[in-house]
Amino acid sequence: MAITVVGSVAYDSIETPAGRRERCLGGAATYFSLAASFFTDVRVIAVVGEDFGPEQEAVFKKRGIDTQGIERAAGKSFFWEGSYLDNLNEAKTHNTELNVFAAFQPKIPVTYRDSEFLFLANIDPVLQRRVREEMPGVRLVAGDTMNYWIKDHRPALLEVLKGLDVLLINDTEARMLAGNDNLVQAARAVMEMGPRSLVVKHGEYGATLFHKTTPRSKGAELRAPALPLEQVVDPTGAGDSFAGGFFGYLASTAAKGEITAAAYRHAMFYGSVMGSFAVERFGTERLQQVSRTEIDSRFQRFRELTHLD
Amino acid sequence: MAITVVGSVAYDSIETPAGRRERCLGGAATYFSLAASFFTDVRVIAVVGEDFGPEQEAVFKKRGIDTQGIERAAGKSFFWEGSYLDNLNEAKTHNTELNVFAAFQPKIPVTYRDSEFLFLANIDPVLQRRVREEMPGVRLVAGDTMNYWIKDHRPALLEVLKGLDVLLINDTEARMLAGNDNLVQAARAVMEMGPRSLVVKHGEYGATLFHKTTPRSKGAELRAPALPLEQVVDPTGAGDSFAGGFFGYLASTAAKGEITAAAYRHAMFYGSVMGSFAVERFGTERLQQVSRTEIDSRFQRFRELTHLD
Repeated sequence: MAITVVGSVAYDSIETPAGRRERCLGGAATYFSLAASFFTDVRVIAVVGEDFGPEQEAVFKKRGIDTQGIERAAGKSFFWEGSYLDNLNEAKTHNTELNVFAAFQPKIPVTYRDSEFLFLANIDPVLQRRVREEMPGVRLVAGDTMNYWIKDHRPALLEVLKGLDVLLINDTEARMLAGNDNLVQAARAVMEMGPRSLVVKHGEYGATLFHKTTPRSKGAELRAPALPLEQVVDPTGAGDSFAGGFFGYLASTAAKGEITAAAYRHAMFYGSVMGSFAVERFGTERLQQVSRTEIDSRFQRFRELTHLD
Repeated sequence: MAITVVGSVAYDSIETPAGRRERCLGGAATYFSLAASFFTDVRVIAVVGEDFGPEQEAVFKKRGIDTQGIERAAGKSFFWEGSYLDNLNEAKTHNTELNVFAAFQPKIPVTYRDSEFLFLANIDPVLQRRVREEMPGVRLVAGDTMNYWIKDHRPALLEVLKGLDVLLINDTEARMLAGNDNLVQAARAVMEMGPRSLVVKHGEYGATLFHKTTPRSKGAELRAPALPLEQVVDPTGAGDSFAGGFFGYLASTAAKGEITAAAYRHAMFYGSVMGSFAVERFGTERLQQVSRTEIDSRFQRFRELTHLD
């Protein structure tokens, strides 16, 4: 089933211990849609500037991603510059230029309106909510956010959370949102705000899945590892790629009927798989080139890494 | 098969968000031996002062632990005072009094000499090496260390590592020992120093097992999670309890023949199980009271938390 994703399509200049790249194609919606495209149809809503040309468009097209909802505006695309020289787990931002993103008003193409899955990538919660409301027929809505919205735009964010089925955030964000340092208590508090399910991402340590329906005595539903890699070239987009693998897999299984607990568990592993590919090269390079065979083989690698028999 | 463990038996005064306890029975050898005692026979080598009485002795005796090697010396036992008020993942040390531990010269009782398993808990590597050399007949030797020995006593530590089959340390220690921030590369470098296997502990995120024999393309052998708990009362001794569960289980399966790859994998989960119990109460309270049934049930909980089918 088709996923519509709304979020940023951007250029990133990135420096890591492995080197430096200027103006790679990036943005949450880009990583998400590339990762999800291996599992299901993906449609993107975003805004780009005049610096987004046929070469960038081709990155989406090659993966069969619908770019009708990528609006072209006068000016330059969203630009981010950051480095991971001291710590691969945390980006240091050197520069952020919102450019055309500052006035972004998401427009949903008519052909997107039958999407059954909706992903609200990390953007202003006011826009997340608007898109959510304009697609009342969707079957499952997931979303992401960040510390900035949690701290300074809490009321708008809380409105978004009410309309989410699944929220994907990292440890720090979960603790900040709940005002509670204990992960299990924080997860429960966050799910009280709306989402039936919560995925807390732990960077190099993997991610934990919580469901509202999991018995309280159990706490978490599943913990998926991250793959210990011999070289992490560029961590940018790992979380968005996780979300793409996770939600893409969920959407692909949903075609066969109900979304089962087992589907959510497998989706966590596919999320980790796509995150592990994303960090192997700069920007989206690896996600552009990975094959379905490699994905399936890495899924088995994750199984070996975690299963006893 | 019997394990001999050498390490500290101590008193700890601990403050955490859950409260404060004065002079609990603690020390790496105490946590280790309690955790291991659920799987196999355990014999302790340590030194205590005149403040170690029948009440403390009974903690070991109730679990069938051999205390013949706990030497009584004039003076006070090793004492540590610390808190976890800001961060449950990292102790803040307020006071350390070595007391009788300062002049510790491990003496191995004759009845311990047929032990087939030896655990060298975190003490001066000079003493670790001496105990190792005095027990040449052991089948498997595992050990722990800490940043202090890695930084300031490296030559002595490197001698110990040559004689170890398995080293258990945390992320920071592994990276410091190898001088390499990448976990997979660091693990390989540490195993080049001696140990055939390495367990890197990640605190609340679990632990990763590496074997020298694992194909390079795979990197890690297994990643075991930690259990997300609704309340962590006191993290003290979690790593030593992990080591006790891990090594105790290995020793228990070894009685049945060769130590298989599967045994190592299961041992990682039993390590996580015992670590998860340790943090549920102050000091060793929970390890003193846990039952084998609870251990088996939590092992199943870990399986549910990680396995897809």
